[in-house]
Amino acid sequence: MSTRTVIRGGLVITASDELHADVLVEDGRIAALAATGTPAAQAWTAGRTIDASGKYVIPGGVDAHTHMELPFGGTFASDTFETGTRAAAWGGTTTIIDFAVQSVGRSLREGLDAWNAKADGKCAVDYGFHMIVSDVNEDTLKEMDLLVEEGVTSFKQFMAYPGVFYSDDGQILRAMQRSAENGGLIMMHAENGIAIDVLVEQALARGETDPRFHGEVRKALLEAEATHRAIRLAQVAGAPLYVVHVSATEAVAELTRARDDGLNVFGETCPQYLFLSTDNLAEPDFEGAKYVCSTPLRPKEHQAALWRGLRTNDLQVVSTDHCPFCFTGQKELGRGDFSKIPNGLPGVENRMDLLHQAVVDGHISRRRWIEIACATPARMFGLYPKKGTIAPGADADVVVYDPHAEQVMSAGTHHMNVDYSAYEGRRTTGRVETVLSRGELVITDREFTGRAGHGVYTPRSTCQYLL
Amino acid sequence: MSTRTVIRGGLVITASDELHADVLVEDGRIAALAATGTPAAQAWTAGRTIDASGKYVIPGGVDAHTHMELPFGGTFASDTFETGTRAAAWGGTTTIIDFAVQSVGRSLREGLDAWNAKADGKCAVDYGFHMIVSDVNEDTLKEMDLLVEEGVTSFKQFMAYPGVFYSDDGQILRAMQRSAENGGLIMMHAENGIAIDVLVEQALARGETDPRFHGEVRKALLEAEATHRAIRLAQVAGAPLYVVHVSATEAVAELTRARDDGLNVFGETCPQYLFLSTDNLAEPDFEGAKYVCSTPLRPKEHQAALWRGLRTNDLQVVSTDHCPFCFTGQKELGRGDFSKIPNGLPGVENRMDLLHQAVVDGHISRRRWIEIACATPARMFGLYPKKGTIAPGADADVVVYDPHAEQVMSAGTHHMNVDYSAYEGRRTTGRVETVLSRGELVITDREFTGRAGHGVYTPRSTCQYLL
Amino acid sequence: MSTRTVIRGGLVITASDELHADVLVEDGRIAALAATGTPAAQAWTAGRTIDASGKYVIPGGVDAHTHMELPFGGTFASDTFETGTRAAAWGGTTTIIDFAVQSVGRSLREGLDAWNAKADGKCAVDYGFHMIVSDVNEDTLKEMDLLVEEGVTSFKQFMAYPGVFYSDDGQILRAMQRSAENGGLIMMHAENGIAIDVLVEQALARGETDPRFHGEVRKALLEAEATHRAIRLAQVAGAPLYVVHVSATEAVAELTRARDDGLNVFGETCPQYLFLSTDNLAEPDFEGAKYVCSTPLRPKEHQAALWRGLRTNDLQVVSTDHCPFCFTGQKELGRGDFSKIPNGLPGVENRMDLLHQAVVDGHISRRRWIEIACATPARMFGLYPKKGTIAPGADADVVVYDPHAEQVMSAGTHHMNVDYSAYEGRRTTGRVETVLSRGELVITDREFTGRAGHGVYTPRSTCQYLL
Amino acid sequence: MSTRTVIRGGLVITASDELHADVLVEDGRIAALAATGTPAAQAWTAGRTIDASGKYVIPGGVDAHTHMELPFGGTFASDTFETGTRAAAWGGTTTIIDFAVQSVGRSLREGLDAWNAKADGKCAVDYGFHMIVSDVNEDTLKEMDLLVEEGVTSFKQFMAYPGVFYSDDGQILRAMQRSAENGGLIMMHAENGIAIDVLVEQALARGETDPRFHGEVRKALLEAEATHRAIRLAQVAGAPLYVVHVSATEAVAELTRARDDGLNVFGETCPQYLFLSTDNLAEPDFEGAKYVCSTPLRPKEHQAALWRGLRTNDLQVVSTDHCPFCFTGQKELGRGDFSKIPNGLPGVENRMDLLHQAVVDGHISRRRWIEIACATPARMFGLYPKKGTIAPGADADVVVYDPHAEQVMSAGTHHMNVDYSAYEGRRTTGRVETVLSRGELVITDREFTGRAGHGVYTPRSTCQYLL
Repeated sequence: MSTRTVIRGGLVITASDELHADVLVEDGRIAALAATGTPAAQAWTAGRTIDASGKYVIPGGVDAHTHMELPFGGTFASDTFETGTRAAAWGGTTTIIDFAVQSVGRSLREGLDAWNAKADGKCAVDYGFHMIVSDVNEDTLKEMDLLVEEGVTSFKQFMAYPGVFYSDDGQILRAMQRSAENGGLIMMHAENGIAIDVLVEQALARGETDPRFHGEVRKALLEAEATHRAIRLAQVAGAPLYVVHVSATEAVAELTRARDDGLNVFGETCPQYLFLSTDNLAEPDFEGAKYVCSTPLRPKEHQAALWRGLRTNDLQVVSTDHCPFCFTGQKELGRGDFSKIPNGLPGVENRMDLLHQAVVDGHISRRRWIEIACATPARMFGLYPKKGTIAPGADADVVVYDPHAEQVMSAGTHHMNVDYSAYEGRRTTGRVETVLSRGELVITDREFTGRAGHGVYTPRSTCQYLL
Repeated sequence: MSTRTVIRGGLVITASDELHADVLVEDGRIAALAATGTPAAQAWTAGRTIDASGKYVIPGGVDAHTHMELPFGGTFASDTFETGTRAAAWGGTTTIIDFAVQSVGRSLREGLDAWNAKADGKCAVDYGFHMIVSDVNEDTLKEMDLLVEEGVTSFKQFMAYPGVFYSDDGQILRAMQRSAENGGLIMMHAENGIAIDVLVEQALARGETDPRFHGEVRKALLEAEATHRAIRLAQVAGAPLYVVHVSATEAVAELTRARDDGLNVFGETCPQYLFLSTDNLAEPDFEGAKYVCSTPLRPKEHQAALWRGLRTNDLQVVSTDHCPFCFTGQKELGRGDFSKIPNGLPGVENRMDLLHQAVVDGHISRRRWIEIACATPARMFGLYPKKGTIAPGADADVVVYDPHAEQVMSAGTHHMNVDYSAYEGRRTTGRVETVLSRGELVITDREFTGRAGHGVYTPRSTCQYLL
Repeated sequence: MSTRTVIRGGLVITASDELHADVLVEDGRIAALAATGTPAAQAWTAGRTIDASGKYVIPGGVDAHTHMELPFGGTFASDTFETGTRAAAWGGTTTIIDFAVQSVGRSLREGLDAWNAKADGKCAVDYGFHMIVSDVNEDTLKEMDLLVEEGVTSFKQFMAYPGVFYSDDGQILRAMQRSAENGGLIMMHAENGIAIDVLVEQALARGETDPRFHGEVRKALLEAEATHRAIRLAQVAGAPLYVVHVSATEAVAELTRARDDGLNVFGETCPQYLFLSTDNLAEPDFEGAKYVCSTPLRPKEHQAALWRGLRTNDLQVVSTDHCPFCFTGQKELGRGDFSKIPNGLPGVENRMDLLHQAVVDGHISRRRWIEIACATPARMFGLYPKKGTIAPGADADVVVYDPHAEQVMSAGTHHMNVDYSAYEGRRTTGRVETVLSRGELVITDREFTGRAGHGVYTPRSTCQYLL
Repeated sequence: MSTRTVIRGGLVITASDELHADVLVEDGRIAALAATGTPAAQAWTAGRTIDASGKYVIPGGVDAHTHMELPFGGTFASDTFETGTRAAAWGGTTTIIDFAVQSVGRSLREGLDAWNAKADGKCAVDYGFHMIVSDVNEDTLKEMDLLVEEGVTSFKQFMAYPGVFYSDDGQILRAMQRSAENGGLIMMHAENGIAIDVLVEQALARGETDPRFHGEVRKALLEAEATHRAIRLAQVAGAPLYVVHVSATEAVAELTRARDDGLNVFGETCPQYLFLSTDNLAEPDFEGAKYVCSTPLRPKEHQAALWRGLRTNDLQVVSTDHCPFCFTGQKELGRGDFSKIPNGLPGVENRMDLLHQAVVDGHISRRRWIEIACATPARMFGLYPKKGTIAPGADADVVVYDPHAEQVMSAGTHHMNVDYSAYEGRRTTGRVETVLSRGELVITDREFTGRAGHGVYTPRSTCQYLL
């Protein structure tokens, strides 16, 4: 059977298991797993055999937070869906969920159509969309119902960026109430943007224009405040809540408190908060601008709380918030005024490797690595068991991962369309060798063998963590 | 191949997945899973085919807390290893971990040998042993190392029962320090027995002899106190901790606090705390004696905290603490003095069904049912992935479960060797149909087809939840 | 000496002491205290002697939260400064701090002048002003500095009432930053008004127009949310915070958490939250309108948290938020639409008696009664030791209180200018007998012997609870 | 009138007030206070006038925790009641509460008689006794009732020192139950001595004999554990609890949690925990032995939690735990074995000055200084208003304190009978000038003018903090 592939001899790692098993792929899906060496396994024949001896066989990564081609601050994120998803594949990520944007005064549909057009026929791996809701009104609320039915089951709101993406507490409450009914999940950018904008204005008035002041004005307490507020509004609405890019100890504490109370509150963090800090924001010669994102990088001490949150499951997902802007010509827009630096970091290619490094460093177990990077994001956003695991019936999105290879992250070698790496020079252990997307080889022994357009739009069911 | 069995068409449920998959058993182990209806699945031939259409296919239950033939209060728990493990099989449980007892002044080895002798050749399903440490001294500590190497990797201590099983805080600390080195896991009966014995004496002196006073003197605050104390001692020792039979809201709160701090602290509860209450202890005509166990049943309000703890993973395991005493002749020893009632309830046969009822009632999800009853106890006590899951390479301990069948629990129909049911008359939905233990049919379409001696002693590795 | 008065033989109760002492008044101030019966005491001669045997001699009450003649919802609070302060005197309160109001677009000064004009020459007892800041801008911030210097040292902001008194988080942050510099104290009405207005609109749309829905839409969680937000903003600003009319268990919890962290956060509750509940709001025939105030009355269960907060000092002050509207013609504006009911309750006359009843009922001690009703409000708002205590040098604002007299609260007998009593028919133990204000008899053996214009404007220093 | 004294022109500071007032003393008691300069004040004539202009006039300190002549570890605390109370007077302390000791197997009475005999006729200032209960049994419990009636209203138990003062949890529970009935207050030495003794043995076995290991084995977590346990036992008994010498952040946290729940739980700390640290214990050449006490000194970081606790009133009292042993001949008993170092520090003379330094340093306010050092210990142990305040009717225990004088603490100049100072060389601002005890001059312009035997035994009523 020509479409049959068998992956032999690897250690299959899922969120729950570590198995010495062979994996049989039929017609783009995982057909079967068999214990390596058993008669059952040996009986398999296949047109293509991949030798995974000494390697890990893991589900393709699910990056639930990317912003390809996002318009922001008068420019656009530098990765297109084509370049960005190719880089994702290189990094072992086989599904991204990007954000379609509603413009104020326009419909959700219009925004979604625009983003579908951008991605259609361009992607190297599969993709879905969340919807950024910038303008909650009666029409918007009705459209939310329709989108949930169509497979856009999550909606992002911003407590930051007044005048742009900002929703006030009334708009948030209304959207949450609606999601409580239609099964949608509200994703929250939790920073008190109204207060932060006061601090920004005051800092600039004091002549504090350097990138590092970006980190100082966007205070951890104001992230914690907004996190708490979002939780309370969700409680009032009877809705679940997913807080994106959690970066501060104090914000984790609010999530912990809510989860101890049994609330359906979830938290995501990103590799930049786990591996970078305000030390980077303070790099001289405007280099700090490379690390400007919101929520901002925090002092190093916050990292321990994030790792603990990932271990105790008070944080459930690690996404990238991939939103690259080149240093030259884009980040530079903010010279002399940190508030004009486009917010965002590249990372879609680095996530799986950085988290494997966390396994090597003893922060998390191998299974937890797969859970936070593959299985939970898939379940959180209604893609499971199609994505996020290696199990009979799932899409054959599979990565053969060499746990012993070493690499050095660098803009010189990465595949993202951006002129710097946030992790330049960082040495890590572990490397993607081969990647299958629905059974097709996208990366083959560290060569790109995929193509733009292989990746397809993937509608999603609703969050699978609500009992 | 004569030893091949295939289970077709069921919904395979594990701690992490729900799959429409066929399961292939070879030589007593799960050889492979294949998506139902795929060529891969259809290619399988087997000597025996079990039709699981419309049924669940779940891992055999792992009951990590049983006391077969336990000597207590001058009598013995009424189930032998033969009757008890047969009842376990009827209830869908294919592994038990029982407790060997060190007598004060004797060695661990002596106790373990005695318990091995009791179980050897008698069991219908597989079994392992924890070791009750009644007498911590230099010899005991050295023996602990040996037992860990042999597969007895968990040690129970009691903060209750002064003069019997009781260890003081120094003995506990020493055992915990040793377990921090040898990888063992301390299991704690957390009740302040010294204080409780004062309250018992005072209650009896006031003429409060009825079974319900058992519940009143063993106060929730004294369970919480001991739980906190055990946590602190474990912190000092740098050791993990597993608290058995958590029953009180206040005790759950201590576990929650410790886990929020990132400590390796684990909690078990039992069906009796989830489904019964002090209302049962207060049943007239000494009927309350049927429900005397320690920790005691609590007022109904505590149940919500236990369910929440199971959902938030502040409690990880549901075991039975199966320790049956007949009402006639055994429980009756405490007429006129509740402190003489043998402590313990039957339950090994009821656990899987009661927890499925919790699924039906909306307390937990199906996957969480399997997690708390099969996968986590297996991982916690070093049996995974041999036990607790359905995955290639695992032992073929499999239950075909009919989720729609109804049953009524009753001493008249149960298979435990005890003259009453703690759940007499309770109607539940869901029932075990067929049970395989290492590939052999133990229960076949609701007939016992197993045998004493099929079950074998199963050595264990150390706790798999420590990073 | 004609201006000398001596009060003999009573039990002098202050926030810290209970003394059998005679009190000597000279020229409107407390000149001396002497132990009753000592030569020192006996040596005193005075033009006027008041026999306080068997009575308490307590400081005149300080009510830090009243709204005389407040314009609200198209009408005015029914007590003028004349009628309201006379009623205060009847109830043993000798100082009120009322709220001058800045209108949006106008200066603080203009508002303060208007309120000074209303009160000047009308008051029976002394008074001061807080300033309601409705419009934070550069000019307002500068005026705040001037007002602090003049003795208006506290500024109220509203997180509720969008479009009226509402300040957004940026305005709040700016005012807090300013108060951190000038020593002012921000008083916060902590309810998320933006979210509440959504719920109000939805309730009315569902036809829920009865007064009881006022209590349902103004959710405890939204009081707690705003309380937490105000605390975080104060932390960012490095400013102290005083939360007015705390009514919900969840809000008390936020204060407790902040105070445990050592923050300068203070909380006030009111008698209506301690003695009334949503049961009153649900009274039929629109009678519930009498109990409409914001924050709203809560279910009875919240009272325990408030009493506990008063005992543990997580709440420090009991004020009245006296803001009466007659049932006839005023409260009735909201028939058919609870959101049109003027918000507010009468109470300035009842506070000291209700809190004495709390002493009788065992909720608080006698000294705590004086502390929360006299000493702490005086210290909190910079009036101590002039007001709030009986000590040499303090103003001779003294109440002779009969702890054994019984009374029945009723609109038929009270002296507030409002056609109903929130406590109609309530029997209490304890009664004001005689009241001195700066040494002058205002109430003499239960007759009003004061006059409009005796009370004078009293400038205040800054909060005395900041180390 | 020959026994009349007037103290003119000082700033009278009490727990609640700061007054410019003259103080009139008649017959050993405060007869009156009058505002300085008023006719009332000017009218006073007295045989003796003390000029306190520019000085503070404060209540004499109440040190609720001293151990004069305590037998410990085969030796005796080096201060007798004569030398110790004279030093107390020098330091501005006019009342001590010492601990009478019950020996195991003997009656409370016997112990109390012995301590009365030691103190009788020796003391320079007034004194009372707590009772150390080493042996709870039926007789002891009955004696507790009698002692409460006689004015020994507080009972200390030890969770440390097994084999000496140690009580097990049953004995503690019984004593607490009794105190819940008779009004007594249980004072707890909260350290898990059973666990600590294991760590001591292990440390010594490893050759860790230096004084600093005393601090390492007596772990903060084991103080916190015992604190929590004592709180829970008190909850079960329905009794209040006073925890002595709280030293660890984690123990303060337990008190905070209990107090947030509204429990009658109180905490004392000592100057050594506020001003010294494990740095002192680590001083070379066995100098660390000077700082050996239990609970032990903690790392410096703990001090912030203690100061915060004193500010938030989670700690209420600062006592000394004065228990001096000379370095030469006494502390030296533990050379080569830290566990043989007599536990205790000198401090009765230094407390008022060190706490005034805390005022100077901004840790606490002046009123809080008096509250934690005078008023609260007096109220806590039933001496108020006789002791702990300056108010008409109180004992004339008065200190004229120069807030501007500087001094250097040193064994060369102190008056305690011990050959070292724990604060050698420390420069502080503020000094006792003159001390009256019941109207008699004990220290006059920094000369000792008192006498052994002036101080009298002072029976106490029960704790005044229980509503």
